[in-house]
Amino acid sequence: MKNISIALHGGAGTILRSSLTPELERSYKLELQKALDTGYQLLEEGATSVDAVEASVTVLENCSLFNAGKGSVFTSGGTHEMDASIMDGSSLNAGAVSSISGVKNPIQLSRLVMEQSEHVFLTGKGAEDFAKKMNCTFEAKDYFFDEFRYQQWLSVKDTDQFQLDHTAIRDEKFGTVGAVALDQFGNVAAATSTGGMTNKRYGRVGDSPIIGAGNYANNKTCAVSCTGSGEYFIRAVTAYDVSCLIEHKGMKLGEACKEVVHKRLKELGGDGGLIAVDTSGSICLDFNTEGMYRGQKNSQGLDEVAIFS
Amino acid sequence: MKNISIALHGGAGTILRSSLTPELERSYKLELQKALDTGYQLLEEGATSVDAVEASVTVLENCSLFNAGKGSVFTSGGTHEMDASIMDGSSLNAGAVSSISGVKNPIQLSRLVMEQSEHVFLTGKGAEDFAKKMNCTFEAKDYFFDEFRYQQWLSVKDTDQFQLDHTAIRDEKFGTVGAVALDQFGNVAAATSTGGMTNKRYGRVGDSPIIGAGNYANNKTCAVSCTGSGEYFIRAVTAYDVSCLIEHKGMKLGEACKEVVHKRLKELGGDGGLIAVDTSGSICLDFNTEGMYRGQKNSQGLDEVAIFS
Repeated sequence: MKNISIALHGGAGTILRSSLTPELERSYKLELQKALDTGYQLLEEGATSVDAVEASVTVLENCSLFNAGKGSVFTSGGTHEMDASIMDGSSLNAGAVSSISGVKNPIQLSRLVMEQSEHVFLTGKGAEDFAKKMNCTFEAKDYFFDEFRYQQWLSVKDTDQFQLDHTAIRDEKFGTVGAVALDQFGNVAAATSTGGMTNKRYGRVGDSPIIGAGNYANNKTCAVSCTGSGEYFIRAVTAYDVSCLIEHKGMKLGEACKEVVHKRLKELGGDGGLIAVDTSGSICLDFNTEGMYRGQKNSQGLDEVAIFS
Repeated sequence: MKNISIALHGGAGTILRSSLTPELERSYKLELQKALDTGYQLLEEGATSVDAVEASVTVLENCSLFNAGKGSVFTSGGTHEMDASIMDGSSLNAGAVSSISGVKNPIQLSRLVMEQSEHVFLTGKGAEDFAKKMNCTFEAKDYFFDEFRYQQWLSVKDTDQFQLDHTAIRDEKFGTVGAVALDQFGNVAAATSTGGMTNKRYGRVGDSPIIGAGNYANNKTCAVSCTGSGEYFIRAVTAYDVSCLIEHKGMKLGEACKEVVHKRLKELGGDGGLIAVDTSGSICLDFNTEGMYRGQKNSQGLDEVAIFS
């Protein structure tokens, strides 16, 4: 049997051990394992890496612990605006959506943009119109409502705190989920989804829906999904940066991820992490923060989820 | 005196000589020259490359011949949705906006996003709200109305022609303006702006507002502004691709542009072109289409505008 691999993340940042009760830690790990197993099982059954990353990210979107889909944070207007993207490393086809509301699974809409439209990137109401045409599942506002997210928002909603206080809501800033996979056909894929930033204004778009910044996949090099301070990831073109170091400098996957996460991104001031996989089945999970919700599983017997470093 | 350089484009594509009357060709060249001179004069007076590219692109946005600002094409809904981005190669700071309406100069809003917000990328109504807060000039719908663009739209508006007929409206597909410059302080910058695609639907976003795809600047390598079939430029991460070939492979500017435009982008199926400048003052204008509205001017005496190859 050919190598298969999958890795995922549920966000990175200042995850304080003290604020994570044992029960909550168990819940996070259970959900990460569920998402990992879902994607891995598809890979075992012969599904493509695109199917696997979509399925894993869908599980994380459907869980309110993570800031994507159900459980997305509140904007300054008290609404939810979600972004997502997906890329197929075998064809370099890609799909992305930004600032969408009501769509249950933004990652599934990204895939429809990739496969059913002539475009790569749709935004706002236009993207929602496309979702309706594609018969995507929509959910009412109460589906996305989560008491914890709501309390987070209440504590900052009449302030500029998302801009001014980096510590208090740091965790939210880094809320993103993602998956990368290698299938038995030797193709890699990457998927990323986020509910954005608590109390965000002005239709802010982060790196998650930007091909090259928060998400990238190419059989020649690797598949990457990022999580972190999105503005820095956009300016550093982070996901493609890993790919270029492999392509042009001949770096190994782990070496390229380390160079990007701990040097190139860090020099710019960017905090966060990324997950990556290449066509040999190698996996890399790297971050320059205290923790990253993450998991990895492959056909060599690796099977683990973790939060802290 | 230190080297200064500026280059600009007003879009690329199938520009048929037969459809370009001598008077129209003169008008295009006059406007390109005006935009070139505006930016160059600022550079001569000691302005930064960011000032120069913003000023040159503003001239092109204010001219209805080009698909950006005034003269933007019509969406399927009969409205105008504009995208723009700007990047400062000395700091890697960047600003971008997508799907905005009514703002007279999207490139100026991009710069405000870069300098006056904590974010890099704002979209839709949120970006317009930010523009209002920044006291940007707004124009009513009739300012953006152009009879030629309107007739283009009428001919395809009840069809899917933007999707189906690549030849008839090919020129519009490639409608973008951009500028790159080197200032006397040795800093490069890039700016890109577009009115999108005639009869576009679903809030489609092209490469113009995507840092790394349609626009990129880095003193270590070069500044790049692209124009072409945006979906391919996003998937190829074209602007950053040029930068990476210079950084990692040690290519000269012209060599890197040629590799990207005629090989890497072409292999994916992408049509269009780009303009680039580096900190030595070298300029490259390259395209794989029949023509590209373009101009270049530097302190070595170069001063020219052109349309065909």
